[in-house]
Amino acid sequence: MITMNEQIITFRKQLKHKLDPMRYEHSVSVSYTCIALAMRYGYDIRKAELAGLMHDCAKRYTDNELIAKCRKHGIALTEAEISAPAVIHAKYGAWLAEHKYGIHDAEILDAIRCHTTGRPEMGTLDKILYIADYIEPRRDKAANLDEMRHLAFQNLDQTLYQILKGTLDYLKQKGSLIDPMTMQAYESIRSAAETN
Amino acid sequence: MITMNEQIITFRKQLKHKLDPMRYEHSVSVSYTCIALAMRYGYDIRKAELAGLMHDCAKRYTDNELIAKCRKHGIALTEAEISAPAVIHAKYGAWLAEHKYGIHDAEILDAIRCHTTGRPEMGTLDKILYIADYIEPRRDKAANLDEMRHLAFQNLDQTLYQILKGTLDYLKQKGSLIDPMTMQAYESIRSAAETN
Repeated sequence: MITMNEQIITFRKQLKHKLDPMRYEHSVSVSYTCIALAMRYGYDIRKAELAGLMHDCAKRYTDNELIAKCRKHGIALTEAEISAPAVIHAKYGAWLAEHKYGIHDAEILDAIRCHTTGRPEMGTLDKILYIADYIEPRRDKAANLDEMRHLAFQNLDQTLYQILKGTLDYLKQKGSLIDPMTMQAYESIRSAAETN
Repeated sequence: MITMNEQIITFRKQLKHKLDPMRYEHSVSVSYTCIALAMRYGYDIRKAELAGLMHDCAKRYTDNELIAKCRKHGIALTEAEISAPAVIHAKYGAWLAEHKYGIHDAEILDAIRCHTTGRPEMGTLDKILYIADYIEPRRDKAANLDEMRHLAFQNLDQTLYQILKGTLDYLKQKGSLIDPMTMQAYESIRSAAETN
């Protein structure tokens, strides 16, 4: 028997209306990639789908709009976030997921909140979403994409470590600002990955 | 960068128009599950997506319509297929995929053709599609679903063996006709799975 969760149908309709078509396609693609990783690592596939589908729900706003919205709703921003505001859509996305879409599961909200920077001591869903956002099939031309797609279904920590390492190398090479949270996420996963 | 294959966009539009909404949802869900298995087992993700998306393209016809269409186009049917025509949508689907949708890749057509019964000496894409059709996230209440979803990303042959075994047990228990191809597929995979 084939069934479809009503909540997913509703959220898809809302996102389709709010996001540009490729961003919507990416959101659905990440949701399915999260499901597959959840199957592989024994995580709840419904929660994984929801986190994947909603992770970019705040992506339609400009940097300035995101900063203004965070201020309006009392969401604290760090100096690093204000200097490189591309990461703020994750934090504001978690707020929107809770207050506008009515999602109250802490693991889902945490995963959305840290999906761009990572964080120290990431949980299973945090890792699944971070990796799914990188490997999803609509993504093109990320570093070591084929290798990461293959590794993702073999070792979650190794994959997270490799992606974070690649991201840091890329940001350093470009001379971009690095959010301290990304550095902390990397340091945190490095020791776990090295013992795996 | 996020991109979308034009062929997939076109085929999705055509299928959405022709299949009922849940069948369409199932087709997209199988396409993403095929992609994830292809990532895991190092198979071409574009071919896997196409096979998954198109596998049920002939599912909108009744048994009698399928038999009539096969006769009209000179597609040979076995006695077993005419006695239990639920499997014919796979054979006619492969014909439609080639002649109406213009897909000429033999691996994709073979995978569509054997996605219901299996066959002896199944190739990687045959296995991926057969398993994806069983474990896809919209599927509810199939035997050992959680276990098969987990196993699928660890051992393709073992998963295929377990699903075929479960299907045969179920058909025998119900007293249903068993297509000889399913029995041959089972015998073929049993020895491979036992040595893995």
